[in-house]
Amino acid sequence: MKGGHSKAMIARMSRYLRGLERIMSGGTTTINSKALGEMLGISDSQVRKDFAMFNRLGHAGIGYRCEELAEVIRQTLGMNQVWSAAIVGCGNLGQALIGYRGFRQRGITIEAAFDENPAVIGTTIHGLTIQDFGQFAATIQELEIQLAILSVPAAAAQKTADVLANCGILGILNFAPVNLNLPDSVSLSNVDLTIELEQLVFAVVQKQKVD
Amino acid sequence: MKGGHSKAMIARMSRYLRGLERIMSGGTTTINSKALGEMLGISDSQVRKDFAMFNRLGHAGIGYRCEELAEVIRQTLGMNQVWSAAIVGCGNLGQALIGYRGFRQRGITIEAAFDENPAVIGTTIHGLTIQDFGQFAATIQELEIQLAILSVPAAAAQKTADVLANCGILGILNFAPVNLNLPDSVSLSNVDLTIELEQLVFAVVQKQKVD
Repeated sequence: MKGGHSKAMIARMSRYLRGLERIMSGGTTTINSKALGEMLGISDSQVRKDFAMFNRLGHAGIGYRCEELAEVIRQTLGMNQVWSAAIVGCGNLGQALIGYRGFRQRGITIEAAFDENPAVIGTTIHGLTIQDFGQFAATIQELEIQLAILSVPAAAAQKTADVLANCGILGILNFAPVNLNLPDSVSLSNVDLTIELEQLVFAVVQKQKVD
Repeated sequence: MKGGHSKAMIARMSRYLRGLERIMSGGTTTINSKALGEMLGISDSQVRKDFAMFNRLGHAGIGYRCEELAEVIRQTLGMNQVWSAAIVGCGNLGQALIGYRGFRQRGITIEAAFDENPAVIGTTIHGLTIQDFGQFAATIQELEIQLAILSVPAAAAQKTADVLANCGILGILNFAPVNLNLPDSVSLSNVDLTIELEQLVFAVVQKQKVD
C-alpha cells in the first residue's frame, strides 16, 4: 500500500481491527462487512469501500474470516510488528500513559520513561523506573526504541523534540499543545486534549442555539 | 455563527486563541494574520480565510488587536463562559486528567470526580475527593456541571454514558475506545489514544517504504 490514505480511513482501519479482535475474543470466526459496520457505527457502503482492496479475502456466503481480515489490516497499519516506545516527560499525564493498557494491547510496549526533574528520576511507576533524560540517547539505542510519546510542558516541547529527532526516533506522539518543527525523517501525531475539549464545547453551544 | 464549520477549522480557532494568549502574556498587543500564521505553522491564505468573518476587526497598518481578536474567537468557540466538568472513571488516565492544567487554563474546571471502585472512592487526587458514581446525579445538579470526561474501561463505557445522558450532561469527552450511542441532546468528542498511535505507526511505516 502506498500513500494517499486519509487520516479518517486509517482511523477506521484501527476501529475495524479492534472490533475484529473483540469479537474473536468472544469466539466469532467469520463476519460480513455489513455486520462489522453495524457493530462499529460505520455505514455498510463505507466499509465496502474501505475493504475494496481486501476483496480477494471475501468468501461467498461466509463473508470474511476474522483472523485473515485482522491480519491484513494489521499489515496495512504496520501493526503486524512490535513497536517499542519511550515516554518523555513523566508528569501526571506521562505517568498515566506509562500505565495505559491500550498501548500494550495494540502491540506497542513502553520500554523506558524519562524526565529531567530530580524529584521524579529514579521513582518507579507501573514497574518502570524513570530515567534521567540525559540517558535518552544511550537507552533508546540499547533498547532499540523507535517511538517517543512526548508529554513535557509546552515550553519544553520543541527543544525536547529536537533531542528525540537527533537520537533517531522515527515517530513522536505529541501531547504538548504546540506546533512542533521536525525533520522529514520523523513522523508526528498530535493529541491535543484542550482542542478536543474545545470542539466539544463548540458542539454543545451550537446545539443550545438550535434548541 | 451557525453550523457548517469543519472540525479542522474549529481546531485552528483553538490554536489561534492559544497562540494569541501566549504572545499577549509576553506583552504583544497587535499582530497581523501573516505573523500569527507563521507562528503556528498555518499558511497565510488559510488564516485569512478563517478570519474572513473577523475582517471588521482588522486595522490598517496594525493588523489585529490581540485581545479583541482573542475575545471574538472565544465567543466563536463558546469559551467566553466558564464550563464545569466531571471526571468519570478515576483509573490512571482519569487521575492524570484531574491534574491536567490544560483544562483549567482553557476555562474548564474539573469540579468533581467519580468512580465505582471502593478502593478509589474517598481518596483525594490533586485536591479533589473521588466520589461514588452513585452520587453522580445529585452532585452534578448541585454543582451545575455540564460536561463529563469519560475515562472508564471500554466494557463499562456505554452503560456509564447512558447514566451521564440521563442525568442531563450536555457533552462527553470520551477516552474509552468504543463507539458510544448517545441521544441527540448530548454532544460527543472522542479521544482515542491507540488510534493516534496507530496513525503514527502507519506514517512511520510509509516513510520507511519510501526511503
